[in-house]
Amino acid sequence: MRILGIDPGSQRTGIGLVDVAADGRCRYVHCEALKLVDAGDFPARLGLLCEGLDRVLDEWQPTHVAIETVFMGKSATSALKLGHARGAALATVVRRRLEVSEYAPRVIKQSLVGRGAADKEQVQHMVRLLLNLANGTRLQADAADALAVALTHAHMSATAARTGVGVALLRRR
Amino acid sequence: MRILGIDPGSQRTGIGLVDVAADGRCRYVHCEALKLVDAGDFPARLGLLCEGLDRVLDEWQPTHVAIETVFMGKSATSALKLGHARGAALATVVRRRLEVSEYAPRVIKQSLVGRGAADKEQVQHMVRLLLNLANGTRLQADAADALAVALTHAHMSATAARTGVGVALLRRR
Repeated sequence: MRILGIDPGSQRTGIGLVDVAADGRCRYVHCEALKLVDAGDFPARLGLLCEGLDRVLDEWQPTHVAIETVFMGKSATSALKLGHARGAALATVVRRRLEVSEYAPRVIKQSLVGRGAADKEQVQHMVRLLLNLANGTRLQADAADALAVALTHAHMSATAARTGVGVALLRRR
Repeated sequence: MRILGIDPGSQRTGIGLVDVAADGRCRYVHCEALKLVDAGDFPARLGLLCEGLDRVLDEWQPTHVAIETVFMGKSATSALKLGHARGAALATVVRRRLEVSEYAPRVIKQSLVGRGAADKEQVQHMVRLLLNLANGTRLQADAADALAVALTHAHMSATAARTGVGVALLRRR
């Protein structure tokens, strides 16, 4: 399966694609950050987000989509902005009948680093390690977060397949 | 011009269409409320919102779009949900290269009733009056709010045309 990970944001939206082989191994496919901040007004940014996501969906044809849930410590203003970006991204994906799995930041860190309170650098390090990217490879932060959520979905799916426990259940742990 | 008004929400999204004649008179075209709450999980709701909006855009071919801004007194949780719905709606509209005008609830009330603190019933009453709908006509609340924002855009556009002041400026008053 090919997993598209999305780290949505109204300034930049991270995109990361990972292939999962039959033996569970993950292979890096592509990552990028859609830069939205120069697009003009807020609706125009959302338009650019959808266009970028459409391009990625056309070009890379993922079979599964994984997206970060929102950390709710944010203010109402930033929650609203993030909600817009996330809503636009989800709408673009659901439009293509792709199923979406959502993961909390804590779950992503737990899955990749082994503890929910890991810092960004540790997550980046594990993304590089798991995808066999050279240690010097510099990943744009949002693109790395998108790869992290894609990898989390790969791990969850593998665990679900092995144990017979649904992914939805695993996510709640 | 034909104006599509949208009152976005993650449970129900109001849709209202109004034609504006050369003399500035507004004519009722169509209104409805997209019921999203039974669609399943949250991404599915956003999918249903976009599908419904696409259907309306195909069928009624509006030339302009007007949408309510968000009242920021809401909690982060409800701002986030509303942001998702609004983001999905904006993305669907911007995708078609339609220009979007945004109006604060206070501006809509001011434009229709003459004061920013008007209640919902007064707004509904003015929507019926301005669109020549029989007094007994029962409008679904979200659909009425969508007609109200469409009418606001009609008024703002007429004032802008008359005075030479841009709509963007008028909106900020």
